[in-house]
Amino acid sequence: MANGGKEGLTPEAARSLVDSVDVFIFDCDGVIWKGDKLIEGVSEALHTLRSLGKRFVFVTNNSRKSRKQYAKKFSKLGMEIDEGEIFTSSFAAAMYLKLNNFPTDKKVYVVGEEGIKEELKLVGYESIGGPEDGRKSIQLESSFFFDHDRSVGAVVVGLDQHFNYYKLQYATLCIRENPGCLFIATNCDSSGNLTSLQEWPGAGCMVSAVSCSTQKEPVVVGKPSTFLMKFLLERFKIDVSRMCMVGDRLDTDILFGQNAGCKTLLVLSGVTTLPALLDPSNSIYPDVYANNLSHFVQLSSL
Amino acid sequence: MANGGKEGLTPEAARSLVDSVDVFIFDCDGVIWKGDKLIEGVSEALHTLRSLGKRFVFVTNNSRKSRKQYAKKFSKLGMEIDEGEIFTSSFAAAMYLKLNNFPTDKKVYVVGEEGIKEELKLVGYESIGGPEDGRKSIQLESSFFFDHDRSVGAVVVGLDQHFNYYKLQYATLCIRENPGCLFIATNCDSSGNLTSLQEWPGAGCMVSAVSCSTQKEPVVVGKPSTFLMKFLLERFKIDVSRMCMVGDRLDTDILFGQNAGCKTLLVLSGVTTLPALLDPSNSIYPDVYANNLSHFVQLSSL
Repeated sequence: MANGGKEGLTPEAARSLVDSVDVFIFDCDGVIWKGDKLIEGVSEALHTLRSLGKRFVFVTNNSRKSRKQYAKKFSKLGMEIDEGEIFTSSFAAAMYLKLNNFPTDKKVYVVGEEGIKEELKLVGYESIGGPEDGRKSIQLESSFFFDHDRSVGAVVVGLDQHFNYYKLQYATLCIRENPGCLFIATNCDSSGNLTSLQEWPGAGCMVSAVSCSTQKEPVVVGKPSTFLMKFLLERFKIDVSRMCMVGDRLDTDILFGQNAGCKTLLVLSGVTTLPALLDPSNSIYPDVYANNLSHFVQLSSL
Repeated sequence: MANGGKEGLTPEAARSLVDSVDVFIFDCDGVIWKGDKLIEGVSEALHTLRSLGKRFVFVTNNSRKSRKQYAKKFSKLGMEIDEGEIFTSSFAAAMYLKLNNFPTDKKVYVVGEEGIKEELKLVGYESIGGPEDGRKSIQLESSFFFDHDRSVGAVVVGLDQHFNYYKLQYATLCIRENPGCLFIATNCDSSGNLTSLQEWPGAGCMVSAVSCSTQKEPVVVGKPSTFLMKFLLERFKIDVSRMCMVGDRLDTDILFGQNAGCKTLLVLSGVTTLPALLDPSNSIYPDVYANNLSHFVQLSSL
């Protein structure tokens, strides 16, 4: 690590990183906000970086919202961020299908929330499942037969606060019985700061459950998979060596940046604690780490 | 395999197995019944084996019912089986806590159904969660704080047709935040014939989800863990070399029998198909396999 293991970050290391980077890729939960609360000093920090001519991309594994809904959230929190600067794992799932020429006469079954359904709709795919199946339940009785739609050609699994046994079996039947049915995970985060006060189970939990019942591994389109990064690089024509991934999770954000060849900055304002970072069992190290984004930007300006 | 790879079972191999065994340990789902339907010829096959002086133990990983409820199910299907001959993974979970001196002033949080709660109650433990939390839901809002009972000292996870995000977070908080809280899985079956017409996601799905959010591995008390077998051996004073495990699953039943040193009989009336058994990727082979229990017993009588 550039700021030297147990030592704190130096102004020189912070300045050197800022100078060497044109584009910052920000994770949102734990970096920009926690749940619906902005993390202290973020707005000013982003303003300072913008004034230095830096470009931003906001990348979130949280699939609950679409890019449009995230732009609204930024606005509500007092920051005007363009929809085109935002990349969600829900959008990544839709893009994956589109780039792989998924036929529009096939349906997509969604274990997840509105964000996934909205992004799928924007690229012309019909989806079923999602929030409305959260109200459905199953009574396991002897002669009960659970039928499913044979025209489902892909199952997308993301974070789902209305996850239930009904959706688990529906997704399982599609993947197991519909020939060639794709199994796509928006991401595999084990947990996340979905509210400001505590961590919550992440999409990885729903993905694990479907993986277990189908005995299959999904295609992962969010961080740390390189699918999203390749898409970003092509879309933005960004030189990867002049990019820095800023995140709060080692196994998604920092790994995502490293897989792509970016510089990496870990902020300790989210899931990862300093002891966890320095624990001998951890093998993922960022180039630089700081308490939070504001702290990093302030140090770089000294 | 005693009946020689792709060859069918011979009367000699079947007879030799019956002669060398005093006690048959039967899995239930896929061996005795599928959902609420008896598998053809099972009643007669058991009658024949009883008349030869064989003793029976019925072991099921299905934690949805208690031993008492299973005795009723046998009776409803026309077979009188003593409660003492039945071992469920719900009972195994209760026994695990008791044998490990789990204090009775601590509570147990249950992700699962009535069977687990009933067995826990029988050994004097207070449980919360289970079916009643299946009706609860969460609205992830900014300032929402999800509280949990700090006196929960163990979480038991089993098959749960009312699994939801509420229970997942409750179990996670207990395991993560209550010091020393145990994480017990009744079993890790990926699927099972819970109804007669199709397979359904098994307890392994709920266990995977909790494992993901807590980043911890559970203690497994059902098959193929040896906990239940050790308990059986002590209780019944059975010579393990004169026992045969009969099951429909390679990775739970057959492995369970082999881990203990029993003989093993795979029946193809449940989850495992002949191609799956003979697939080069499979590394678990029974001593003998047959289409179903009736077929095996008939052959042994020729």
